[in-house]
This record gives sequence, C-alpha cells and structure tokens, in this order.
Amino acid sequence: MQELSWATPSVRQSLAALKQSPPFVYGLTNYIAANLSANLLLAVGAGPAIGSAMDWPQRFATGANAMWLNTAALMSSGPEALWTAADSADKAGTPWVLDPVAMGAGAPQYDAAVHKLLDFHPTVIRGNASELIALAGGSGGGKGVETTASSDDALAFIKDLAQRTGAIVAVSGPVDYITNGTQVYAVKGGDIRLTQVTGAGCSLGALIAALLANTDDALLATAAAHALYSVAAERASAAIGTASFATAFVDQLSLLDPAE
Amino acid sequence: MQELSWATPSVRQSLAALKQSPPFVYGLTNYIAANLSANLLLAVGAGPAIGSAMDWPQRFATGANAMWLNTAALMSSGPEALWTAADSADKAGTPWVLDPVAMGAGAPQYDAAVHKLLDFHPTVIRGNASELIALAGGSGGGKGVETTASSDDALAFIKDLAQRTGAIVAVSGPVDYITNGTQVYAVKGGDIRLTQVTGAGCSLGALIAALLANTDDALLATAAAHALYSVAAERASAAIGTASFATAFVDQLSLLDPAE
Amino acid sequence: MQELSWATPSVRQSLAALKQSPPFVYGLTNYIAANLSANLLLAVGAGPAIGSAMDWPQRFATGANAMWLNTAALMSSGPEALWTAADSADKAGTPWVLDPVAMGAGAPQYDAAVHKLLDFHPTVIRGNASELIALAGGSGGGKGVETTASSDDALAFIKDLAQRTGAIVAVSGPVDYITNGTQVYAVKGGDIRLTQVTGAGCSLGALIAALLANTDDALLATAAAHALYSVAAERASAAIGTASFATAFVDQLSLLDPAE
Repeated sequence: MQELSWATPSVRQSLAALKQSPPFVYGLTNYIAANLSANLLLAVGAGPAIGSAMDWPQRFATGANAMWLNTAALMSSGPEALWTAADSADKAGTPWVLDPVAMGAGAPQYDAAVHKLLDFHPTVIRGNASELIALAGGSGGGKGVETTASSDDALAFIKDLAQRTGAIVAVSGPVDYITNGTQVYAVKGGDIRLTQVTGAGCSLGALIAALLANTDDALLATAAAHALYSVAAERASAAIGTASFATAFVDQLSLLDPAE
Repeated sequence: MQELSWATPSVRQSLAALKQSPPFVYGLTNYIAANLSANLLLAVGAGPAIGSAMDWPQRFATGANAMWLNTAALMSSGPEALWTAADSADKAGTPWVLDPVAMGAGAPQYDAAVHKLLDFHPTVIRGNASELIALAGGSGGGKGVETTASSDDALAFIKDLAQRTGAIVAVSGPVDYITNGTQVYAVKGGDIRLTQVTGAGCSLGALIAALLANTDDALLATAAAHALYSVAAERASAAIGTASFATAFVDQLSLLDPAE
Repeated sequence: MQELSWATPSVRQSLAALKQSPPFVYGLTNYIAANLSANLLLAVGAGPAIGSAMDWPQRFATGANAMWLNTAALMSSGPEALWTAADSADKAGTPWVLDPVAMGAGAPQYDAAVHKLLDFHPTVIRGNASELIALAGGSGGGKGVETTASSDDALAFIKDLAQRTGAIVAVSGPVDYITNGTQVYAVKGGDIRLTQVTGAGCSLGALIAALLANTDDALLATAAAHALYSVAAERASAAIGTASFATAFVDQLSLLDPAE
C-alpha cells in the first residue's frame, strides 16, 4: 500500500493536465448534489453539463470527455436514462465513474437498477463503505445515504469488486483507499465536516471523472482526486461551521495551483 | 400561550436527544429546497435521505425514524410518490411533517393533491400563514410561495386545523405559533432574512422531523425546532447580505451545543 | 451602441420600480440553477416560484407578473410543461424570458424542443454566444453548457434573431450586448468568476424577468439587469475563491440601493 498526497508530483501533474486541456464532463446525479458538483468542476477548470434532458444521456455520454453517474439520479428520471448513458459511454469509450449512492440501504428495486449498471463497465466505482460492501455482495447495513461501516471494513470487499469488474474501486472514510484489485493507494487527511456537506461524495465522483479525461492511468487519476479533496479540506479547516466549511472547501479547490 | 426559546431547558433537551441518537430522516421535497434541507439536517447531526427514486418512498418512509413532505416535490414526481410515502409512514407509525408549500396560490389541481395528504394523518403541519389558512379552508391569498397574511391572522385557522386533523400545526412569521388545537406555544426572534433564503421553510420542516424521532411529545418537538431556528438566526445576524446570512445560519445551527 | 452601467439613472430606476412593487416571478429551470435563481430573486426583493408541479405551468405562467424559462428544465419534465408555460404566458400577456441553455451542443432532439419555444413569442432571449448563434441558425459549437464563441462573434447573429423574432436578445460575455435588432446596449465589467458559478446565467434570466414586470421598455429592463450583475460582481471581487465569490455576489445584489 502506497500513500498519496498533494505533495506527490503525479497528483499535481493530474491537476495540471486538467487545467491545460479542460474536459467537458457530463453527469447524471440528483438535485441535492448537482449544484455542488457543477460548482466544484467549474472551480478546478472543467466544464460540466448535468441532467437527463431528452437526448442528452445518449448524446452527451458519447460526446463528453468523461462522465459520472450518481445513481440517486433515479429520483428525477427512470433507470433507462442511466442505462442509456452508461451504455453510450461504454460504446464510445468515454471513461465513466459509478457512484452507487444508498446501495444496500433497504430499497431492493433501487438496488437492482444500480447493480445492472455494472454491465456497462464503469471505469471507476466510488462510494462509502456500506454502499461498496453492499455492491460487492456483502451486508453493508447502510442507513439511508450514511455508512455504518468503516473504510477499513470495506478494503477486502473493494479489492474483490475491482477484480471482478475490472474497475478501479475507491472507498471514502477517515482513510480513503483506492485499488485496482492488487495495488492499493491510501489517502489520509481531509476534514470530518466533509461528511456534513451534502453532495461532497457525489462531487468527488465528478472530480474523478474530470481527472480521467486526460490520462489512461485511471488508478492514479482516482487517487489524485482523493488527494485534491484532502488538501482542499485541510486548507478549509479554519471555517467555523459546516456551511462556511463547504464554501471554503470549494474556494480552496479553485485556488489549487499545480506549480505551487 | 407560553413563550419558548433556546433558554428553555426542554428545547435544549430536544437537541441533546437528537445528538445522542441521530435519526435517519427521509424527505420528499423540491430541488430548490433540497440542498439546504439536507445540509441543515447534517449540521445538527441527523442523517438525511431525500427523493422519490424507485421504491424509496415506500421503503424509506417505512424504515426512517421520521419523514417530511414538502408538497412542491410534485415538481419532480407525480402525486403517487407523495401519497405512497405518506401512507407508508402512517401505516409504519413513522412520525411525519406536512409542508403544504404554495397551497392556495391559484393552482387547483395542485391544491387538491396536497389536501389529500391529510388522509394519511400527518403528525405535524407547518407552513406560512397564507398556506395554512388555505389548507384550513379559508381564503389565504398567497402569491406563489409567498404569504400575504400574517401569523396572527392565521392563529384561529391553525387551532381549528389542529382540532380537525389531530396534527400539531405551526405557522411561521414575525412570531411563530405552534398549537395542538388547545395549547399554543409562541416563538419570537429570528431574522427577516430567513424569508429571503429559499428553502428555509422547507428546512424547518426537516428539522421538526428530526426532533420528532426521539420523542412522543410532538408539540414540544415542533416548538423546539422553531426555537432552534430563532436562536441560530439571531446569532447569524451580523452577516452583511442574504447569502452570507444563509451560510452563517447553518454554521450557527451546527454549533448549537445543548450543554452551553 | 450605448454603454449602460449602475451609474445610469434609468438602471437605478428599474431596480427602484422592482422594490416598490415586488413582482411574483415564475420560472421553469433545472435543479442545478434553481436554488441560486430563487435566492437571487429574493435578494433583490422579488417573489419567486419555480417548477412544473401539476397545473403550475398553466396557472402560474398566467398569474405571474413575469416568467423565465431555462430550457434545461427538460431534465426534470417533458417539453409539454415548457410549451404550456410559454403558451399560457403568451396568451395572458405575461412577459417572459427564454434561456436556451446548451442549444447547439450536440443533442438534436433537445435543440428542436427549444426551438419550438420561439413560436410563443418570448419577450427576451438571453444566453451565451454559442447558444444564441446556434438558435439564430449559425454554427455555435458549444461544448455542453460552455460557450466556445465570444459575445463579439455573436453580435450580428443576435441582431438578426431580434429582428426575426421581435424579441430583445442579450448575449453574455466579457462585454454583454443587448439589442432589439437595431439599437444596441453594451454592458462592461463583471468578474470572470461569474462563469465559474453554476446557475449565474439562468439567474440573470430570472433577474431580467423581475425587471420586466414593472415596465413596457423591455430593452432597457434587460440591459439594466446586466448592469446590476456587473456592479454586484465588481463589488464582490475581493472574494478569494469561486464559492465565496458566489456568496458575496448575492450579498451585493441584496445590498444594492437605488438611492445610493
């Protein structure tokens, strides 16, 4: 296991590549997380488009440089929009991130619709421990969108999930783990208040997608996104409450300079 | 009529109970208010899930510790999702809050769908004066989602509504009133800018739900939520404009300490 | 071409008229932009209602003082809701603003649904250069919701579009241009970070609608809205990052005083 942080040159190079060639990143997400996700992508220099308007899922999934799907998008469309987007991205070779929000929290129809997305070969799967354990077939025991398991609990499950799906799998927690099934990166730091800002997880999926656009090394891009989150959260830690923390966090992401 | 505030021990005890046993609170709301509602619940320590994705309305309304329904959720789903959630909560004994946004503002089909939710025995009904007067059968005269009546105008109507429905009814205004049909609590204070932050009313419904989860005294829990709003708004009052006020308000909610 | 700014008396008079007679402004927009749009309207003193819940499109488009349609509303409803709202506003004489987000970005079904809205006589059309060039029949070359063309590139196209549709047409950019097809206003200033805050464009459409409510001079009202944006952005420019800029921008709009 290798630790990765903002001090790692390859992390800064990931961000530099994004800024040099700003990707168009398409996303399907829910209306709670969408605003933060879009603002976070704009803050680092990417160009987002979000939503399942008419023929967007097929067209934008095909035309975008990368895509992320937060499955709670199902709260404003049927599963067909997600499947169409995933299938289109898969066929077009658009790298894409699956965020299986609330998987295993007690809604079996929803869970089945999420599970079917694995058929379309996500490049990366990210989530909290309960969600990923459930997606891997374990008993995740999530409560709504909150996790009741730790990222350490999830480590064996995500390695297995990566091996079976061919995707990079990343779990968020006090320590984040990112794996391709054999190699594992660990990212420490951050701020507990990231768990008190709605959409912070979904937005991490969006940031991963943005970093996937300019590289073939999906493992590194995914780990780099976690490291950017960690350093921005630490630099925002002087904020007095949860809402000003969210503002400071996006501010700090917007100020990250690969050359600093 | 009894006045209630952050200085009242039972108000602090309500918040202490929430923090000791963080509830999973499920909500259906609209995409304008959802982000603030989720962040506000996270700020006080509750775990929110929002939205009508597939089987969530039936499953989460049954499994959650409490629920709130902002009827403007109808802008992203049909009325069946709301009726299913309300019916499931009613059958499972999940306490739930009805927020009849824009009731009486001139859209009769919408109003009829809202009115039908009374069949499912809401634990609490909260809104502005125009909305509650309209729900009680008076002429509320709302304009969109804004009220044209005062909370004093609404007092007789909400007492009557509480007696007929068995729900606690609460009206927001310069003075908030909370009643079970006979007893009335009054909560003063706050900040006029709460009316200039979209979703502040919906988020109050979410906070009421969170406080309902750990008590059988729905009247007190509802009044306590209004008192938490009032003190957080007062502590945020140094903010210079409406947007920084919203940030400071959530910050102050996140910092409220029952032991202070 | 005439330059317009906060120093122009008629701009302040537009804002004064809004504050003296606060309009009810109805909007259909998407869930990314809706929160900022609502908060921005509340910040200047207007009363917003947003969304396509049941009979709202027909009723609120008829009953409101003004309306704006951001066509990315299609991500949470079918095109009928937009067409109904536009048709109702047209028949009732409600002035309305069309914001053809992502027009020409590569999704032909979506583009066709947007184009059909021209049949319902928008009072104002606003957008970025790529979107308006595409709507005018040129090759806009947008990438998602981002523009790849400049406002100067769009000037000839928007004059033509205004002449053919009878609408005021306004393009945002380093210099904003607002035209009725013959007369052109230019508005300078602003802050590049307005392009890094999602929903800032949609919210400008909402502000235009709010200023349309109390005047017959749609050209001036549209230009005035751009000038209010410009001065608020300049006053917010001390913000360190993109998120605190967004907060400061709304704050400054809320503090604008026509008598200053």
